[in-house]
Amino acid sequence: MLRVALLGCGNVGSQVARILLHDADALAARTGARLELSGIAVRNIDARRDVELPRELFTTDASALVTNADIVIELLGGIEPARTLILSAIEHGACVVTGNKALLAADGPTLYEKADAAGVQLSYEAAVAGAIPILRPIRDSLAGDKITRVLGIVNGTTNFILDQMDSTGAQFDDALTEAQRLGYAEADPTADVEGHDAAAKAAILASLSFHTRFALENVHCEGITSVTAADISAARDVGFVIKLLAIAEKLSVPAGMVPFDGGTEGANVPSDGGTEGVSVRVHPTLLPREHPLAAVRGAFNAVFIEAESAGELMFYGQGAGGTATASAVLGDVVSAARRLVLGGPGRTETTTGQVRALGIDAVQTSYCIGLDVADQPGVLARIAQLFAERQVSIETMKQTIHRDIPASTSRTAAGTEANVTAGSAELRIVTHRASEAALAATVQAIGKLDIINSVTSVLRVEGV
Amino acid sequence: MLRVALLGCGNVGSQVARILLHDADALAARTGARLELSGIAVRNIDARRDVELPRELFTTDASALVTNADIVIELLGGIEPARTLILSAIEHGACVVTGNKALLAADGPTLYEKADAAGVQLSYEAAVAGAIPILRPIRDSLAGDKITRVLGIVNGTTNFILDQMDSTGAQFDDALTEAQRLGYAEADPTADVEGHDAAAKAAILASLSFHTRFALENVHCEGITSVTAADISAARDVGFVIKLLAIAEKLSVPAGMVPFDGGTEGANVPSDGGTEGVSVRVHPTLLPREHPLAAVRGAFNAVFIEAESAGELMFYGQGAGGTATASAVLGDVVSAARRLVLGGPGRTETTTGQVRALGIDAVQTSYCIGLDVADQPGVLARIAQLFAERQVSIETMKQTIHRDIPASTSRTAAGTEANVTAGSAELRIVTHRASEAALAATVQAIGKLDIINSVTSVLRVEGV
Repeated sequence: MLRVALLGCGNVGSQVARILLHDADALAARTGARLELSGIAVRNIDARRDVELPRELFTTDASALVTNADIVIELLGGIEPARTLILSAIEHGACVVTGNKALLAADGPTLYEKADAAGVQLSYEAAVAGAIPILRPIRDSLAGDKITRVLGIVNGTTNFILDQMDSTGAQFDDALTEAQRLGYAEADPTADVEGHDAAAKAAILASLSFHTRFALENVHCEGITSVTAADISAARDVGFVIKLLAIAEKLSVPAGMVPFDGGTEGANVPSDGGTEGVSVRVHPTLLPREHPLAAVRGAFNAVFIEAESAGELMFYGQGAGGTATASAVLGDVVSAARRLVLGGPGRTETTTGQVRALGIDAVQTSYCIGLDVADQPGVLARIAQLFAERQVSIETMKQTIHRDIPASTSRTAAGTEANVTAGSAELRIVTHRASEAALAATVQAIGKLDIINSVTSVLRVEGV
Repeated sequence: MLRVALLGCGNVGSQVARILLHDADALAARTGARLELSGIAVRNIDARRDVELPRELFTTDASALVTNADIVIELLGGIEPARTLILSAIEHGACVVTGNKALLAADGPTLYEKADAAGVQLSYEAAVAGAIPILRPIRDSLAGDKITRVLGIVNGTTNFILDQMDSTGAQFDDALTEAQRLGYAEADPTADVEGHDAAAKAAILASLSFHTRFALENVHCEGITSVTAADISAARDVGFVIKLLAIAEKLSVPAGMVPFDGGTEGANVPSDGGTEGVSVRVHPTLLPREHPLAAVRGAFNAVFIEAESAGELMFYGQGAGGTATASAVLGDVVSAARRLVLGGPGRTETTTGQVRALGIDAVQTSYCIGLDVADQPGVLARIAQLFAERQVSIETMKQTIHRDIPASTSRTAAGTEANVTAGSAELRIVTHRASEAALAATVQAIGKLDIINSVTSVLRVEGV
């Protein structure tokens, strides 16, 4: 018999408790031990919960609970008291299962080291992409391969909002309100729409994929609040969809650049004098509509992986929801229980890599730039000249003239707002691959031209 | 240091050997032990191979090689001598990694039992869906969940052929020839196009998903040789695509039916008097075009899983190819090596389930039936009457009249062949869910009508 302590009884925790009680026989058959739910630590025993659970299981004394358990499931979220309770559980020899991406991104290495030193298993499948088994495949199934790139839709709230904007032509604010109404977005949506939640997951994905520890400060992060209906409609016109992607990719950086954004010690220096590193970032991204990730609709999540031998892989499923996330938690619980029954220590990660974290300046992608320009002869030539001077090569340029539309009524039939000045033109430029630095310099120079009303958007393009 | 013996050096084996030699440092860092390729057993040392490998590694004495290894990788395929060599490796205490789906489907239980008894790990990720990590997620990540249904595109050859037929209008024979020309189909394509390869994989998927051993004889198997361009074009007209699916699903069977097709002992008998069991089958299937599996093109594989808690999951990637499959083999090798280094026995499977294998008669799905009928008044009524008498409910009926086209020139512009008699009509009927038995009786009765020239196709529909 194994004692299982549960910390937290919200959306996910109450489903975990229900399954532990309800499916006890099946879980016992699969693990070789009965999993006894020894207690549920909560702040308020009388709070309303989704699932009816025996009152005698509840306690407010989490500290006592974790000192007397074989497996501790931490679903409190946030840094404290989660961190202290997990460390106490490890000290007392318990295996730990957590879904706490914020804590892992902030202080994962401390937890991993303590767990390894104590010989206990620390697992966290639920921390990234909810129900989708993604961390174990990366850590175990692809352990004999070399991952080169990870592209993930790992935040359901923002995917729902962008999908709404794409399918209905809604502006960001309206789509956010709809997401809040349907329960896909919280009252304070900051962590989701500013990309912070995706950034924590990106750090975890990058750490496991590249066998190197990446912290939150290694992740370049941009949210979706500045994405407009006009951006999405312009993207659609050229066969693209806009997704908030968590990206981790191995890059070669030419010698002479100073790309490092904090990061770990000991860079790989390939023999050509260049430097290899990993860029970890979150930003709105144009993806071709035929890319497998482009079809991921609503609040679903998916992670697309490119590996040297395996080629392209994709993992798709529900990224949130109490019951779905409980599936990932229980997979980790069964794994911990099997190991406790059969013997053998658990390894939480392998950090054998020496790759550096790269700053956003080291990244080369294509860009889609939106400009509100004066509608007069010679404009295109002057803008093209600025690109050419900075070696940024233009792939396509598309001009839409809004000669007769006053700015205040420029909302189109589709509900999109062109956001342009009357008597002006809207210009959309897609570049070939260029460095972030060259692109930024070009955009800065363009912004200073007298013929430019405004730079309406600068978005990166992936998957082409 | 761990000695790794490789049996077989074909398409996959030569890539496995290359990676073991070439990436030795990275593999050592990830496992905590150096993996020394101790030898490669082949029939002919002088055969031409894709990869240049040190000649001194080769031997024709496989029996000697397996008795002196920590990890044995079996990539010979076929039943013997693979079976004898694996059993010998297990007896000598080696962990075994294999991609041999035919052997596992034919005699897996013997191997699993011997491995468990010897406390060695037997893993076979490469046996199903090539590079896609699917078996480990099912066995470990979803171990705390209850899988209810698995739908897999697990044979790249047939998916390529059906995709060609769908996108070009080609007939089966022409698409097969094209697949052979491109190396996606073998000179003797029987195992692929008759569904045998997919059936072996279905048995393995079902066994892991439902914690019960299913053998090849529990799998109902139909190939794609009778799928015509007309079927595919008719499916497209109503928003469907035809895929060869490997299906394993839990079903409730009403009391009184005698659905069992061999299968394991000890059925679950739910309290309502009905019987629960698992249907494992392979057949061409109509899928709605918006289903995630419908977008799986060319020779790619994907497995779609429905689980009680996790909801819908999909795993997508390359199903074949030497390098891609080598990724799965090496994942298993690293896992075996980690376990040898860190201690603890390996478990190959958990067979705690008592569910029965159901025969195809227990299955209820929708059907799409193609009929070549006389073009005369009253035909539809007579046919509809036969459906009604057998409680098979019709969802849609579509009639296409070919009054003026002689049979011998009925090839249409798109290259599809209508396959109908002149002066006749083509009828496509889609039913609501019906039992296989009721449907078969209906089709038999229809076939006897004088107004029927022929029953051109009977296809099942999933995902609606």
